[in-house]
Amino acid sequence: MSLIENLEWRYATKKMNGKAVPQEKVDYILEAARLAPSSSGLQPYRVLVITDPEIKEKIKPIAWDQSQIIDASHILVFASWDKYTEDKILEVFHKTLEERGLPMDTMDAYKERLWGMYSQLPEEWHANHAAKQAYIAFGMAIAAAAEQKVDATPMEGFDNAALDKLLGLEEHGLKSAVILPLGYRDESEDWNLNLKKVRTAKEEFLLETV
Amino acid sequence: MSLIENLEWRYATKKMNGKAVPQEKVDYILEAARLAPSSSGLQPYRVLVITDPEIKEKIKPIAWDQSQIIDASHILVFASWDKYTEDKILEVFHKTLEERGLPMDTMDAYKERLWGMYSQLPEEWHANHAAKQAYIAFGMAIAAAAEQKVDATPMEGFDNAALDKLLGLEEHGLKSAVILPLGYRDESEDWNLNLKKVRTAKEEFLLETV
Repeated sequence: MSLIENLEWRYATKKMNGKAVPQEKVDYILEAARLAPSSSGLQPYRVLVITDPEIKEKIKPIAWDQSQIIDASHILVFASWDKYTEDKILEVFHKTLEERGLPMDTMDAYKERLWGMYSQLPEEWHANHAAKQAYIAFGMAIAAAAEQKVDATPMEGFDNAALDKLLGLEEHGLKSAVILPLGYRDESEDWNLNLKKVRTAKEEFLLETV
Repeated sequence: MSLIENLEWRYATKKMNGKAVPQEKVDYILEAARLAPSSSGLQPYRVLVITDPEIKEKIKPIAWDQSQIIDASHILVFASWDKYTEDKILEVFHKTLEERGLPMDTMDAYKERLWGMYSQLPEEWHANHAAKQAYIAFGMAIAAAAEQKVDATPMEGFDNAALDKLLGLEEHGLKSAVILPLGYRDESEDWNLNLKKVRTAKEEFLLETV
């Protein structure tokens, strides 16, 4: 199936049936997220995979008691850097150059320009910029799940600060951005399953201003 | 090819050859963006498709003189709402209910809860939240281009305010978020073509905190 057919197939699953997603499918979805592009290739985000029933029970009230937190077999938590630092940027660039067999100073001028900009910007800008990058990877994970015929619920409805605390994200310099429960639809119980997918009409979505 | 094979195939094209992408491929990429999920289904973004050489010439200096602006046949500009309003939310919800043949008050309680939250948050939060949604659609467009074997350059390096002004986005209540030139690689001139794709190693990308 094509990407478009997969996007038409998928929907925000509201009730899952508790069946486990095979590990190789989860691995595939995570690999798609890992391959996503990001600004300057920094990948300022990480993914946590939650399967432990006890932790899921603790996440549920943090995520407005949404049942998918329990009924999904895997919860992917996308967490992004709280801020950029010169050291973090250098670390990524040096690893990149190492893998490419290029001299370690190859990206120095680029790093100077980049850090010259980022260092002037407030920490809130950093966090938002990093989170935006995580949303690209999140999109890839959504597309990959649909390709694998795994159901998923893109989820922003949770208390970010409480989740950060529960998962100890702060000490890793991370903030939760968005989560993606993976599982399988409960066909008889999901009110959202048979509702028509509605999107902004093409003629309105494509803006002609010039 | 699978999504992962497509993601491995793609790269941030730094030099394009000026060849035009067929309209049906552009339409496919735009449709993938249109089908992307978004928070509460609001799709708080629009896409502009720029092909006019005169406008591309004007965008080039705004986008740090990157050559792809000229050598790509189509520039997709992802622009997101500057803020949410109760009216905008209601408009989307009412269209959704109309298409689903449901009573117009079906989503009223949900709208009240949503607007109850959004209305308390500063305009900058709104703009960032809407932009994040646009990044999901941007991700889908990147995946779709790769599937169609169309080259693309995810691009944040431009002066947002200048682009907003040039394209008259403010009067539509939009802010430019990110742009995606579409075209074909110049195989002999693109220094980025044969560099190894480097990503954060899987064991580092997947964070184990709990």
